[in-house]
Amino acid sequence: MASPSDPARFAEAESDPSLPKEVAKPLTAALRSDLLKAQYARLAKADRSLLIVVAGLDGAGKGATVNLINEWMDARHIRTLAFGPPSEEERQYPFLWRYWRELPAKGRTGIVFGSWYAPLFELLSGKNPKRDEVERLASAIRDFESLLARDGVQILKLWYHLSRDAQKERTARLASDPETSWMVRPEDYLVADNFKRMRKAADTMLTLTDGGLARWQVIPSADERLRSVRTGQAILAALRAPVHRPSPDEHPGVTECQPRAASGHAGGRRLTRVDHSLRLSENEYDDQLAHWRSRLARQVRSKAFRKLPVVLVFEGHDAAGKGSTIRRITHALDARQFHAVPISAPTDDERARPYLWRFWRELPSPGDITIFDRSWYGRVLVERVEKLARPQEWRRAYEEINQFERQLVESGILVLKFWLAISKDVQLQRFKDREQSPFKSFKITAEDWRNREKWSAYTTAANDMFDLTDTTFAPWHVISSNDKRHARVAVLERIVTAIDMRLSR
Amino acid sequence: MASPSDPARFAEAESDPSLPKEVAKPLTAALRSDLLKAQYARLAKADRSLLIVVAGLDGAGKGATVNLINEWMDARHIRTLAFGPPSEEERQYPFLWRYWRELPAKGRTGIVFGSWYAPLFELLSGKNPKRDEVERLASAIRDFESLLARDGVQILKLWYHLSRDAQKERTARLASDPETSWMVRPEDYLVADNFKRMRKAADTMLTLTDGGLARWQVIPSADERLRSVRTGQAILAALRAPVHRPSPDEHPGVTECQPRAASGHAGGRRLTRVDHSLRLSENEYDDQLAHWRSRLARQVRSKAFRKLPVVLVFEGHDAAGKGSTIRRITHALDARQFHAVPISAPTDDERARPYLWRFWRELPSPGDITIFDRSWYGRVLVERVEKLARPQEWRRAYEEINQFERQLVESGILVLKFWLAISKDVQLQRFKDREQSPFKSFKITAEDWRNREKWSAYTTAANDMFDLTDTTFAPWHVISSNDKRHARVAVLERIVTAIDMRLSR
Repeated sequence: MASPSDPARFAEAESDPSLPKEVAKPLTAALRSDLLKAQYARLAKADRSLLIVVAGLDGAGKGATVNLINEWMDARHIRTLAFGPPSEEERQYPFLWRYWRELPAKGRTGIVFGSWYAPLFELLSGKNPKRDEVERLASAIRDFESLLARDGVQILKLWYHLSRDAQKERTARLASDPETSWMVRPEDYLVADNFKRMRKAADTMLTLTDGGLARWQVIPSADERLRSVRTGQAILAALRAPVHRPSPDEHPGVTECQPRAASGHAGGRRLTRVDHSLRLSENEYDDQLAHWRSRLARQVRSKAFRKLPVVLVFEGHDAAGKGSTIRRITHALDARQFHAVPISAPTDDERARPYLWRFWRELPSPGDITIFDRSWYGRVLVERVEKLARPQEWRRAYEEINQFERQLVESGILVLKFWLAISKDVQLQRFKDREQSPFKSFKITAEDWRNREKWSAYTTAANDMFDLTDTTFAPWHVISSNDKRHARVAVLERIVTAIDMRLSR
Repeated sequence: MASPSDPARFAEAESDPSLPKEVAKPLTAALRSDLLKAQYARLAKADRSLLIVVAGLDGAGKGATVNLINEWMDARHIRTLAFGPPSEEERQYPFLWRYWRELPAKGRTGIVFGSWYAPLFELLSGKNPKRDEVERLASAIRDFESLLARDGVQILKLWYHLSRDAQKERTARLASDPETSWMVRPEDYLVADNFKRMRKAADTMLTLTDGGLARWQVIPSADERLRSVRTGQAILAALRAPVHRPSPDEHPGVTECQPRAASGHAGGRRLTRVDHSLRLSENEYDDQLAHWRSRLARQVRSKAFRKLPVVLVFEGHDAAGKGSTIRRITHALDARQFHAVPISAPTDDERARPYLWRFWRELPSPGDITIFDRSWYGRVLVERVEKLARPQEWRRAYEEINQFERQLVESGILVLKFWLAISKDVQLQRFKDREQSPFKSFKITAEDWRNREKWSAYTTAANDMFDLTDTTFAPWHVISSNDKRHARVAVLERIVTAIDMRLSR
């Protein structure tokens, strides 16, 4: 996944090459015009966005370069995203949360300062960075960039680099001129003293994250003209690059999963193994519902719960009872601490970004519960069955989803996924009942009947999903819902038990 | 605007009426079914949203009631918005900012806790509230609600009230039962001691804000059954209410302005008075541009500027030079401190909310500059001319815009509005030049030629706009842009001067 350390990586940059004025001038003029044209062409097509990661040694001229990009291109269609240290609110979420939220829409360009590389570089520049921690961050970054790259976000990663002497000289020069002294920050002075360590950190970081569709480019930074031209050229090449549609066997950083259910594999039968004989009498139901509901009500009002964010996911065939089960849960909760998200067709804004974006935006803060009524699993269920996603898209989604859920769990979110299972005859009966009931007839449409015809395609898709996304950190709970009373109690019991386990840790 | 104080306002609620169980039971059953049906009907139509403001005395059962609403209705389509004291970030913006951001989309229901009434009630409950401050908050609230009400947001305002003794008794009863003691908060105990003062504060607040399309309803709260039923009935009536389309002479809280330009009024000629003879030679331009640009560059990097949020608005006929003028400004800025927003057709999410919503979301924080390339003035320009807004919509927009800008200015934002004025022949020349230039031909489309045919309609609309939105707190700067050099320098000069004035205050 990561490329081997390249001894020559910084060789050119540390030779501090420069560009004579008379060469730079015509080059720059042509470049500016080409950049503008390429930017407008991208805007008009709006088939993908461009994310430019600006990183490098302090005092290498990153800020000045970004200003220049804004000058050369049409700044109205560029969003400069400058991230400082995370705020208290941001620290409550997975570390990539704040970057996900700010993803530019297709057609637009984002320049990222203080990107997702900042924590990794800080870690690596310290003394004796922990290997585990380094690998955890690096792999989260690789997964993140691979997912974006495959999903319509083009990533250009620029590392600004120069020799120790040139860095020192540049800093001193800027500081001595009152017109430019504001550009110098305290950290710029530290680079020269720690040059070897920072250089090594940079080399390691670039090695660990120089993969697949998001490769690093080192920009020699000692000479302003060369730095500017090389930056402009890199951006122009990115803007002009054809849309990359990876072939099935080329998905760096992700395994494209072969559905096993269809192939007669030993797995892929989970829904055939559901015990639909489980039932509760009305009396048992009343007792058990009251019991688990009051336990849940007490749990979520406990002091310890204030630190726990919870995500509940509900999936299942139409008429499986998702809505009514969710209601039995929310009845135990305070309205101020949960938030139900019914998932339907994406809006313009959502379609203009990778499919996981809308879910990142709804993550709970500590003490809150987000309940997804249908979820990101739509990618491997309805989008697969209805052919709304291409085969390579839904095939790779299994691993993308696992990576996403792993990040949630690692950041401390409790993730519980429920599949409410019903048999085909029960669905038919419920559809008929709904049509009869004046109170429920709005819940049944022609589309439901059409979906029913694809029952077995949905079942196959669900079985594949269980095979490929039933992870130790976010397992599936498949619950028979032929008897709704059983399902409601069973779901409540699982939730209470899981919260109990987390709070007693 | 505000209704007179009503001596009988709290009479019913303070008599602590109750509902016998045998009456409540069938009523509740019917209500729940009706509420669900009405909720789904609203969702299906998606022609407006419902915002339920839950306010009232502490310890009156507001929290319990909201939980009940979530239980009775489909909680998946309700968003409970619970606002505590504003965070540090939120305090940097106009006080309504955080409420604007969370407005539900059409079709959906939002329940607001800790609403925009919290600061006003706190102020009024204190000793000797300042009259000015009270009126300022009350009038901002009235304006806000009127605007929402006219723009597809239905507002239901519920005040939960009961007698002093009943409040005290309820608090003691809940506290004594371990099952419910979590519902009691410290502030609940303070109500009985300060009942008279709080009652008076409530009476004043309701009087000041009981206007037009957003009237208060007082819910007697001593008896849980009655409180629940009355709440449900109020919501049901709101959900069922026909869409209110105010007639031209019925716009509580806003003046619908009669355009004067068309009527031969003495105003409405601003664009005929522009001095298009102003020009700069190339040398003058270079000198002056460098002068003002470097002053701006220094200003925005000064320590004092870190506290100043700035909004720049650019409007003008097509080809007036907005884009190139904006570029001359951004060249002086650091990319991390400005943010350019080109305004085009709204997205789904934007169309589902009042038209000012998208602009509220882009307001700058202190030290930042938001540059709007076209703006909320689209409402009274393109939307008027192209008939995208109904006459009463754009006519009332003048005052809505003034109210909006007043809030920005009062919260400390510097608002500068520029109209780049060109004459019709200059536009023609620029269109032709653009068509000739291989580098600029992408900037000219059939739509531009179509818009040109409506030149005089746009001019009339612009003149009306100057008449009606050229306020002391946010005046228009009309700048001749027949000579682009003149325009760029003039705009920069105005910006620098305005910032100087603000920083030296």
